[in-house]
Amino acid sequence: MKKIINHKADIIEDMFQGIAFNYQDLLTRIGRTGIFYSKKWARDRVAVIGGGGSGHEPTDTGYVGDGMLTAAVCGELFTPPKAELITRAIKEVAGPEGVLLVVKNFKADIEAFNQAAQWAKQEGIPVEMVIVADDISTERLDRKTYALTRRGVAGTVFVQKIIGAAAASGLRLPELKNLGDQVVEATKTLGVALSPSTITNQDKVLFSLQEDEIYFGIGIHGEPGYRIEKMHSSERLAIELMNKLKNAFAWKKGETFAIMVNGLGSTPLMDQFIFVNDVGRLIGLYGLKTPIRKTGNYMTSNDMYGISLTFLRLADPQWLRYLQMPTDAYAWK
Amino acid sequence: MKKIINHKADIIEDMFQGIAFNYQDLLTRIGRTGIFYSKKWARDRVAVIGGGGSGHEPTDTGYVGDGMLTAAVCGELFTPPKAELITRAIKEVAGPEGVLLVVKNFKADIEAFNQAAQWAKQEGIPVEMVIVADDISTERLDRKTYALTRRGVAGTVFVQKIIGAAAASGLRLPELKNLGDQVVEATKTLGVALSPSTITNQDKVLFSLQEDEIYFGIGIHGEPGYRIEKMHSSERLAIELMNKLKNAFAWKKGETFAIMVNGLGSTPLMDQFIFVNDVGRLIGLYGLKTPIRKTGNYMTSNDMYGISLTFLRLADPQWLRYLQMPTDAYAWK
Repeated sequence: MKKIINHKADIIEDMFQGIAFNYQDLLTRIGRTGIFYSKKWARDRVAVIGGGGSGHEPTDTGYVGDGMLTAAVCGELFTPPKAELITRAIKEVAGPEGVLLVVKNFKADIEAFNQAAQWAKQEGIPVEMVIVADDISTERLDRKTYALTRRGVAGTVFVQKIIGAAAASGLRLPELKNLGDQVVEATKTLGVALSPSTITNQDKVLFSLQEDEIYFGIGIHGEPGYRIEKMHSSERLAIELMNKLKNAFAWKKGETFAIMVNGLGSTPLMDQFIFVNDVGRLIGLYGLKTPIRKTGNYMTSNDMYGISLTFLRLADPQWLRYLQMPTDAYAWK
Repeated sequence: MKKIINHKADIIEDMFQGIAFNYQDLLTRIGRTGIFYSKKWARDRVAVIGGGGSGHEPTDTGYVGDGMLTAAVCGELFTPPKAELITRAIKEVAGPEGVLLVVKNFKADIEAFNQAAQWAKQEGIPVEMVIVADDISTERLDRKTYALTRRGVAGTVFVQKIIGAAAASGLRLPELKNLGDQVVEATKTLGVALSPSTITNQDKVLFSLQEDEIYFGIGIHGEPGYRIEKMHSSERLAIELMNKLKNAFAWKKGETFAIMVNGLGSTPLMDQFIFVNDVGRLIGLYGLKTPIRKTGNYMTSNDMYGISLTFLRLADPQWLRYLQMPTDAYAWK
């Protein structure tokens, strides 16, 4: 397995050092940890913290900046940060207004962030948590444990942007928690893999596919999807994903959405632009408005060749304004 | 060959449509051509046009915007636009101040842009051309035809940013031509491939490599490099490239550079950050200052797994200010 790395055991620490070097004007790294926070942070608003396992770059460090996340707390490859580290992040950035945690819905992530929130509260820090569960590919698997099986994926970036802009605008912690929960409800994502991602430090891949196959509904850590079939065309892929999104939203002509086409790591921009074109034609057919359109690598699965499509229903015009507000976060443009 | 595309013959047109859809607020596309120009363009300054073959996304459309390129003129996959199309782009955006063309140094590109410049001049449009030739890997191959064999690669993005900011600041055409030539002289790049890129519309790859091999000095269209060897580590790769750059620049302690680590299409950000960390350590050892540090996919070779490293000597403090000026170009951040 040929990679631009040094010792396999050091890939995450080496990467953190690279991020700290490259964004030294924007981000402060705490010691030799996976905690990065905005140099402009003044502790005068609610701090918004994102985090989770590494391997999804630019998530989450790429969204730290004035007007978006206050801090990111990052774990090892595809492994969430420990509760102790999250607690340290909370204590480091918390001001009197408290802290909002934005967490992707994976069992281990929820456990660690919950534990950290409890510890922080015990020390008197106001903490709330928004759990992003936008991946609709898995909601059929288990209706009873819905909250656990619907994973948090690329839609998280929209949630972080809206909450981050709202926090910068002065919203208080209960308002932000309420806003975040509403935005999560309005955010839905579907993904597809053409090739698996590599667990670089274990020299193995997450699953296997035949040369001509694609895997619908795959998770960003290789969690099972809902169907494997032969790859046909970008257009058919767009039709499949848009049909599922249409059913999930039951959208009507004239409704307004933010959309994101997200490359999963090794997908060339050419493929992403071809795909967003097919999505755009269907958006035209459905008569939807999409004033926010993002195409690029926003939340990856290391080197997975694949794509995800996120729709966020802009139920409140203020959400659009939050998405349009400027931020210096390095991966939001 | 599994790709997110439709008909192979249509990949570039489909991609152009996707770019036009995604960036409809930022870019105007002329008809069904590869010409995209900034919606904010007012024809009151020198127009700066970049261009070349497609397959290098986000180059060049990603650098069109207020404060950077006025327009991009894009050809087919790895094939420069025809002189007729370049002429159309020139006529479309030219104001009384004229047009500066920024061209990557490849024979076919130079011929097409030269022809277009001639035709435009015959119609009374002032045109100058800056030829970027930053790839120092090939300058040994043919000392006599130096200007033709030293290719234009990722350093082009720095040249476009500086010229674009200078044009927006009101510099006149002869000043911009002079500035561009100086910046080109101060820009040097070296690249390495771990895997070849695909010529998607021909179902073939550009060259072949063994599983454990890397290819130094490879061009963005698969042009020959200078050595194939076994991949060892990011650190050794950084040492190899930095040694060559050190010899080329003969830099002294305390000198100031802009640097770019550029992913060639399918390189995960993790690898890029690990590599920039190794580069950063050497920068520290050499005692250089690097106030501009860019890491990401700036000029790709479709789906090539690989990386390039660009250094630009900031001989004039004004160049740093030009690099720091804001632009709304979608791929500059």
